[in-house]
Amino acid sequence: MPDPLSLSVRDAAREIAAGRLSAEAFATACLDRIAAREPIVGAWHYLDRDAALAAARARDAEAPRGPLHGIPIAVKDLIDTADMPTGYGSPIYEGHRPAADAACVALARAAGAVVLGKTVTTEFACFTAGKTANPHNPAHTPGGSSSGSAAAVADGMVPLAFGSQTAGSTIRPAAYCGCVGYKPSFGMVPRAGVKALADSLDTIGIMARTVGDIMLFHAAIMAIPYVAPAMPETAPRLGLCRGPHWEEAEPEGRAALDSAAERLAGAGAVVRETRLPPECAAGDKHQQVLGSFEGLRNHMPELYRHEALLSARLRDEKIARGRQLTLAAFRAACRGAEAARAAAQQWVSEFDAILTLPAPGQAPRGLADTGSAVFNALWTQLYMPCLTLPAGRSPDGLPLGVQLVARRHADERLLQVALWVEDRLGQGGSS
Amino acid sequence: MPDPLSLSVRDAAREIAAGRLSAEAFATACLDRIAAREPIVGAWHYLDRDAALAAARARDAEAPRGPLHGIPIAVKDLIDTADMPTGYGSPIYEGHRPAADAACVALARAAGAVVLGKTVTTEFACFTAGKTANPHNPAHTPGGSSSGSAAAVADGMVPLAFGSQTAGSTIRPAAYCGCVGYKPSFGMVPRAGVKALADSLDTIGIMARTVGDIMLFHAAIMAIPYVAPAMPETAPRLGLCRGPHWEEAEPEGRAALDSAAERLAGAGAVVRETRLPPECAAGDKHQQVLGSFEGLRNHMPELYRHEALLSARLRDEKIARGRQLTLAAFRAACRGAEAARAAAQQWVSEFDAILTLPAPGQAPRGLADTGSAVFNALWTQLYMPCLTLPAGRSPDGLPLGVQLVARRHADERLLQVALWVEDRLGQGGSS
Repeated sequence: MPDPLSLSVRDAAREIAAGRLSAEAFATACLDRIAAREPIVGAWHYLDRDAALAAARARDAEAPRGPLHGIPIAVKDLIDTADMPTGYGSPIYEGHRPAADAACVALARAAGAVVLGKTVTTEFACFTAGKTANPHNPAHTPGGSSSGSAAAVADGMVPLAFGSQTAGSTIRPAAYCGCVGYKPSFGMVPRAGVKALADSLDTIGIMARTVGDIMLFHAAIMAIPYVAPAMPETAPRLGLCRGPHWEEAEPEGRAALDSAAERLAGAGAVVRETRLPPECAAGDKHQQVLGSFEGLRNHMPELYRHEALLSARLRDEKIARGRQLTLAAFRAACRGAEAARAAAQQWVSEFDAILTLPAPGQAPRGLADTGSAVFNALWTQLYMPCLTLPAGRSPDGLPLGVQLVARRHADERLLQVALWVEDRLGQGGSS
Repeated sequence: MPDPLSLSVRDAAREIAAGRLSAEAFATACLDRIAAREPIVGAWHYLDRDAALAAARARDAEAPRGPLHGIPIAVKDLIDTADMPTGYGSPIYEGHRPAADAACVALARAAGAVVLGKTVTTEFACFTAGKTANPHNPAHTPGGSSSGSAAAVADGMVPLAFGSQTAGSTIRPAAYCGCVGYKPSFGMVPRAGVKALADSLDTIGIMARTVGDIMLFHAAIMAIPYVAPAMPETAPRLGLCRGPHWEEAEPEGRAALDSAAERLAGAGAVVRETRLPPECAAGDKHQQVLGSFEGLRNHMPELYRHEALLSARLRDEKIARGRQLTLAAFRAACRGAEAARAAAQQWVSEFDAILTLPAPGQAPRGLADTGSAVFNALWTQLYMPCLTLPAGRSPDGLPLGVQLVARRHADERLLQVALWVEDRLGQGGSS
């Protein structure tokens, strides 16, 4: 029987379908890895070994349901599961049992996935970190808010995981932990059953070890036909965009982007420096206004009944900001964001993808703070698909990533470009 | 003590704040009306008289929290309540107890509202009707999906109610029952805790007996300052739009619109016939594609675990349609809908509001079908604020309405125009 953790998800699913690998064996391998590493990594908020194995055995006892049949996945604890508690990273909901799976979880299960357990999220996917450490150095943050999902995938505990992103909550932790993180175009993956932060920004994200695995996972949860990825025959046109926050990038981040651009150009990509259109200048601010205005209102159920159980930081930063915002400010941000989207869509169309940083640099030291979203908030607000993939290591030995961004709804093109970039940079980014 | 059901919400709140009226007396008056009429109307899915009175007494025992202090409201049973079961109109969720209030419910409660109970919704706000009858003639539908909310407000059981709209689920039942229904601009009222049908369409709606009450309710649930309405000094410019479905309008509906246009022009409004821009021609189709593509995926939790408990109509119509749609069709609808929004926004800006039908005519006979959304789906998809208000009676004595629509985010202007129109048509539409 092959080692399931060494296989692509597609190959593992094929082995399972052929009866050469069992879902139980795959789940066991993941659970063993988790047992060995969880005391250091702390990726899981909820895990029931027996229940996970029972679910795997149930898949072994039936005909394949879909492309994820028997594949273990992790679900960020911001996302409802009918058979596991869902705490949203807050003591208010500790032990809460949702009545239903989130739509994305049901879609994954309908495709045959085995939900192993729930991974750590920051409090309501905001600032306050959970227990998770970076698997490459536990003194460093894994990033957030999808901390546990990124750490679990990067540490080889599970091949696929759900995250979410309202500012940078999928891309940043994936980059910090050294896995592939993908935030689809806004409006693609249904959000039913995911704790809402901001209706106009919240997006389901996914994580995997490779771009190929992302492609399969994405097709499965969108319930669309999966087309096995073919390496693009021509090299992509990439727009190298340092973005408005280049000053805030760390030396190792800058070096990673420049080195990747050079290597990709050397491999034949057309790499041209490009600047965001002027309509995007206030993009971060719009993201923050939308997030705070909607966030205050979405947090009202907790504010009304459980205010004392909210972290001081959530109350003093996001909620306080939300209280100061007028309806006029919210509307101006809606309009500004829309104008930015239209201009950026035009701009990005000149390229197959934008090449930019997923985070300022390596994962910062310390677990209290999950790092800065300055390299993410704008792209989220622009509704564009974003993908981060590994691009080497920092001098401290921590993962560094590069981010690819394409125009909204050009997700397939983005994934094709990412496949090419991954191939040229080498898996792990260190060819 | 004044009769609370004869007061505007603003005046009732003022009486309560001044100690001349108690929240308990207001709730009692509503509960008595419900006790007398519920056997005929069937508006309520859940109602606990003692709990409602206890909530009212708790408001009486404290200082006013906000503009709705002590005001009874109804909540469509598609919307979560932490202290009342929430069944989404489906046997799958009968008796389900959500862990939290929906954001809009918490916002209303934070403003002091007393939630009396849960009103009947069709199955998942789709086709299959509940038990509610039209309060003006119980042989006729109240419309749907917000059937109970519209019937309860129109019948004087409660002054305010929450609904929702994905195609026509607020405007149509309000028109059929003869109350004021308002669907704010898309993206205004947070949807957290409302059973999702389609992320790109779902909108919280509200119902009341008058435009003034709508204004107060809306400000309270948006947590924005309430400005007491002043009658506009100048008459509005109205675009009379018969829309692409005029052929499907019933004679009494056509007569109501023409008569309203005439009376408003006679009162000084500039009324000019206008046609939708060509970009809106496929607007209904886009709405249906978005609703079906997203709907299939949002229903996956029920399909996966409880398929046999879904109605045949939901499975055979909406879900079957969703299964036939490709990702390319979904994206084409996203793009088409966006283009229609941009063109319509431009077009509507020539007017203070569009004047059109809220439904083909009077409420159809029979309770199995809640009527047609052909006069609603386009406006929902255009993200524009819509308001229906009474405009007289049909020869059968059933209410007829007219609908006002304004450009997205011009909600205050729409409400001001509606105040003027209501004044000129007379409350109840029969001046």
